[in-house]
Amino acid sequence: MKNRIDVAVLGATGKVGQEYLEMLKDHPWFRVVAATGNTKVGMKLGDIIPGLPTGARSVEITESDPNKVEADLVFSPLPTSVARETETAFAKAGFRVITDASPHRMDEDVPLMIPEVNPEHLDMIADRFSKRNKSGFIVATPNCTTIGLAMTLKPLNDSFGVKKVVMTSFQALSGAGYPGVASLDIQENVIPFIEGEEEKVAAETNKLLGTLGEKRVDSAGISVFSSCNRVAVIDGHLESVYLESSKPIEDPKEVFESFMGVPQKLKLPSAPERPIIVREEKDRPQPRLDRMAGKGMSTVVGRLRQVQGKRTLQYHLLSHNTIRGAAGGAILTAELLVSKFELAG
Amino acid sequence: MKNRIDVAVLGATGKVGQEYLEMLKDHPWFRVVAATGNTKVGMKLGDIIPGLPTGARSVEITESDPNKVEADLVFSPLPTSVARETETAFAKAGFRVITDASPHRMDEDVPLMIPEVNPEHLDMIADRFSKRNKSGFIVATPNCTTIGLAMTLKPLNDSFGVKKVVMTSFQALSGAGYPGVASLDIQENVIPFIEGEEEKVAAETNKLLGTLGEKRVDSAGISVFSSCNRVAVIDGHLESVYLESSKPIEDPKEVFESFMGVPQKLKLPSAPERPIIVREEKDRPQPRLDRMAGKGMSTVVGRLRQVQGKRTLQYHLLSHNTIRGAAGGAILTAELLVSKFELAG
Amino acid sequence: MKNRIDVAVLGATGKVGQEYLEMLKDHPWFRVVAATGNTKVGMKLGDIIPGLPTGARSVEITESDPNKVEADLVFSPLPTSVARETETAFAKAGFRVITDASPHRMDEDVPLMIPEVNPEHLDMIADRFSKRNKSGFIVATPNCTTIGLAMTLKPLNDSFGVKKVVMTSFQALSGAGYPGVASLDIQENVIPFIEGEEEKVAAETNKLLGTLGEKRVDSAGISVFSSCNRVAVIDGHLESVYLESSKPIEDPKEVFESFMGVPQKLKLPSAPERPIIVREEKDRPQPRLDRMAGKGMSTVVGRLRQVQGKRTLQYHLLSHNTIRGAAGGAILTAELLVSKFELAG
Amino acid sequence: MKNRIDVAVLGATGKVGQEYLEMLKDHPWFRVVAATGNTKVGMKLGDIIPGLPTGARSVEITESDPNKVEADLVFSPLPTSVARETETAFAKAGFRVITDASPHRMDEDVPLMIPEVNPEHLDMIADRFSKRNKSGFIVATPNCTTIGLAMTLKPLNDSFGVKKVVMTSFQALSGAGYPGVASLDIQENVIPFIEGEEEKVAAETNKLLGTLGEKRVDSAGISVFSSCNRVAVIDGHLESVYLESSKPIEDPKEVFESFMGVPQKLKLPSAPERPIIVREEKDRPQPRLDRMAGKGMSTVVGRLRQVQGKRTLQYHLLSHNTIRGAAGGAILTAELLVSKFELAG
Repeated sequence: MKNRIDVAVLGATGKVGQEYLEMLKDHPWFRVVAATGNTKVGMKLGDIIPGLPTGARSVEITESDPNKVEADLVFSPLPTSVARETETAFAKAGFRVITDASPHRMDEDVPLMIPEVNPEHLDMIADRFSKRNKSGFIVATPNCTTIGLAMTLKPLNDSFGVKKVVMTSFQALSGAGYPGVASLDIQENVIPFIEGEEEKVAAETNKLLGTLGEKRVDSAGISVFSSCNRVAVIDGHLESVYLESSKPIEDPKEVFESFMGVPQKLKLPSAPERPIIVREEKDRPQPRLDRMAGKGMSTVVGRLRQVQGKRTLQYHLLSHNTIRGAAGGAILTAELLVSKFELAG
Repeated sequence: MKNRIDVAVLGATGKVGQEYLEMLKDHPWFRVVAATGNTKVGMKLGDIIPGLPTGARSVEITESDPNKVEADLVFSPLPTSVARETETAFAKAGFRVITDASPHRMDEDVPLMIPEVNPEHLDMIADRFSKRNKSGFIVATPNCTTIGLAMTLKPLNDSFGVKKVVMTSFQALSGAGYPGVASLDIQENVIPFIEGEEEKVAAETNKLLGTLGEKRVDSAGISVFSSCNRVAVIDGHLESVYLESSKPIEDPKEVFESFMGVPQKLKLPSAPERPIIVREEKDRPQPRLDRMAGKGMSTVVGRLRQVQGKRTLQYHLLSHNTIRGAAGGAILTAELLVSKFELAG
Repeated sequence: MKNRIDVAVLGATGKVGQEYLEMLKDHPWFRVVAATGNTKVGMKLGDIIPGLPTGARSVEITESDPNKVEADLVFSPLPTSVARETETAFAKAGFRVITDASPHRMDEDVPLMIPEVNPEHLDMIADRFSKRNKSGFIVATPNCTTIGLAMTLKPLNDSFGVKKVVMTSFQALSGAGYPGVASLDIQENVIPFIEGEEEKVAAETNKLLGTLGEKRVDSAGISVFSSCNRVAVIDGHLESVYLESSKPIEDPKEVFESFMGVPQKLKLPSAPERPIIVREEKDRPQPRLDRMAGKGMSTVVGRLRQVQGKRTLQYHLLSHNTIRGAAGGAILTAELLVSKFELAG
Repeated sequence: MKNRIDVAVLGATGKVGQEYLEMLKDHPWFRVVAATGNTKVGMKLGDIIPGLPTGARSVEITESDPNKVEADLVFSPLPTSVARETETAFAKAGFRVITDASPHRMDEDVPLMIPEVNPEHLDMIADRFSKRNKSGFIVATPNCTTIGLAMTLKPLNDSFGVKKVVMTSFQALSGAGYPGVASLDIQENVIPFIEGEEEKVAAETNKLLGTLGEKRVDSAGISVFSSCNRVAVIDGHLESVYLESSKPIEDPKEVFESFMGVPQKLKLPSAPERPIIVREEKDRPQPRLDRMAGKGMSTVVGRLRQVQGKRTLQYHLLSHNTIRGAAGGAILTAELLVSKFELAG
């Protein structure tokens, strides 16, 4: 990596956009050189966000228009409502777009990425990589609820073949954005429904764990049943998992703990030391105590148990929904992209 | 029913004991004539609990000793630590004991009862019923987490044969008693573990749905996988359920709504009009909104869905843990007992 | 009272409007004969609200236009943004309007009423009462935070002369309406500011405790310093009060407990038995335990203490913000109005 | 400072004791050489607390007995019940004890210290300082609720003379220790009482702001009225303050912001850059957003307002109760002590 990579952040003035700017502040590879927004156009980033590095401070906010942006990579934390169209426009204009929005995730030609889980899926865009401004592309990161699930299923599936998964989530308030959930709805309560979430978990999990064929990913063929629920916790999605496997599952703790991905091997800047951390206490993981494990980039697993034979397994997992589930996950994906294709700005 | 039935409440000065006294205040059949406690012995109920009816007011609190109590039925809301021994002593002394404590639930000669689910299990004690003071007995009610689950499984199992259940609970704070869960543990958090609860759910569900053979209940043979979790809600256990059946499940909404039990047919005083209420909104049941359905005696079901064929079903249920799950459930059980055996004081 | 009084509810399809309909369901004097809304015009009340009495069920929702309404009294739970104009239009058209909205509260010719505190202020509109359709009027009820404070200051001021009040509130989420406060703002937090609230408390308290002069109320001249804060509680405004008096305060508990207002003397249907209930426990009142005292119509006081002489007093009070502070308070005011002027429909 | 100062931590195995060890891990001056506990005696600190520096790791836990400890300074985070006796024993044995427990705070010969507020009070023990093992002493830090209040009163009192204070607190759960407040008590509630707290706030504030006379501190003579309340927040005490002054208060914002104490001038290791931070937003300080200001050592002030002339002032303040209010405050006090008397180990 000779030089810094120039990056743009779309929707940089929104809440998630600001989290990207925050996480990119001291990034060793990426330098923010462009930012867009539908408000505050013409202002400088330094005027609206404190503590930015010198370069980023003077970046002028433009409209989300490919003609007004110049960058090697584009991060898109755009809201769902505008993400589809804007991201497509940037890709068509030759930009490499990394998005955590949902619209393009299931597109056949869009890799859906968790760097530890399916790094080989990036091969899908290998031929489009070197020809910037001629052939841009979109790379997506999964729904924040899917990430921890797919991360833990990966090593189990590789070793034992996962056939069926029943997952019930306890999702944090920040997953609904701001203002999101009304306090009068969630105070002293649980809301047992999140629009569209269960469908996403099933579809995305199968794409993430699927096999890259000719140009597209073949579904992993796992039966995923999920139940998505909102609880009064600020950050951190807790999930209770039951699964069935083809082969007997032996020593799942060891399987989780020894799991290492490409980001760990490459020592990517945002990669946690361990993708999966196993807690042995009887009552962990807990959102408040475990969400910042690995700076919010690790998945914490606990309560491993096999109560009826070796072909079933139950556990809980916790994944930080606004770090690994948004900016952090997208930045790690960009690092993998850059590393894999030896991009230098 | 010619006369009132004389009842005793063990541990009447405790929190749950007081809930019994409260619920028995205006009971059309039962009259509190005795009360025990390990504190306040010698005081009168009227001195420690406001608003009791005339008769109960003058009841003197005695020690929990069978020799000091005279009653047709004995309610035992004793804490687990003393329940086994004390309840056995009362049963041996010829008393009919109805308990919501856990120690005797899985005893072979103890019927574990949800009146709507397995009224026929009371036949187990038929021969012991008429000979008071010679042959007492214990009748138990299930764990508060098991009740809503077994209630909803009953009609499904009858029609379609339930083979496997995966249940994840969101349990209320009051389920842990007082002082119970420290606020510093649960504030802004979820605790993914409740001691011994998952084992109880599996065992009790199979006893409740089992078949009464010669003297003892044969297990229903359902594979029950559960995950029990504590959330920051005062009352009401929410459960997310996935199940597999032998036969295709047709019209589960109708199956739930048309389910009626013996208590409904007999119009027992504490029986809710409907044992199971189905909510059709996309985001119900919710603990705060639905826990008082049927005065806390109904189980509320919602989010019925069959996403992969007819042999699986997913839904949420809500059951009030301190009403149906404690005093209310025990009193309804007593009503069934009295009604079935035509007991009159 | 020979007949029922015909009442209209403006904004009946909103959340507060529905609370009026709920509280008026079984009212012995008032009969809902008209309802307005900015949505659902043309529908019948019975189609949108369950459990209404026969008469109300068939009431057709009209626009909030005086020409489309016929009634003896009009309740206005309109949102602040439209209340000023609409209420004025109704009053000009000859209607007697009772409002819990804020715009008209400090108008010189509008009585601001807590029936127990300042019933004599209704004299302000005595001359306008008998001439319906010629001279309507508006009667307002105070801000939900002011009500409990003014209720407790009334008997103290009468006996000892209150000179200065320092009040800090712990206000419930429901006071902000729906959706109101975002869960991400209040979870694990306190918000130490409520827009415009402190100014209202000072101004309204002085009008409520003021003396009716020629046509208008002279301020009570009490220095009111307040601090209004939002806490994570659904219903019930708790307030911590410090005050200084002209004369030594003797036996404040007795002063509070012996306080009776005109509504109690007249036994108005919505009047609580006691306007002020004093709790002697060291840690009361508490929102969750005390908000429903007197069916949400009583003010609960506790922690009475005089630590530096008799000319200061400290206490806590609790008042239900959506019952006494909205529909309940307005209906009691209407009852006083009807009773005082011997209105019969 | 040539060498490290050897320190002992009493009650090191308790929750607060562990916070001391945590904060002392990387301390530039202090080295933990001794630790006591009433459990785990004989174990090594490294066996029970992860991540300690090499030296501390091998420290063996002893009983809380002066004969078993050797150290230059002793920190005492002992629980109230044993603090009085044990601390006295250590002081009599010649140790310099710094405590955040309450029993000795109001003792005439014990300086009660907030380093920014009353550094001169340490003169009280000047003569006892140099003669270790002959004349030990106790230095106390205040109640966690008093600290933020006294910190903000200090510059106001110096410039304008504070005569009267009315303070209402919103105190965090961690202030009650562990397990502390039951979740069933505080969920969806506020508890308007904390045992003994209001008396402490009044007495300690007057000692902190008092003048050191011959050997003892003369009370500042401020009338302090307080109301102490528990809210469902983990950390951070919020306080709403009203005060009256002798002289007109001019530019309170500037007075707060320009306030610097001796710790700032000496650049003590644990001193925050600013003792008081003023937030200008209309709705700050908030516990969750502001408690970590200055690494939990600053007091954050907001909502400054003077609604009735210059001789009254209202504001909110926030102070971290387990950092500045416990270990952090005691360590800063120790730093001042060491610095003032040029102690070197």
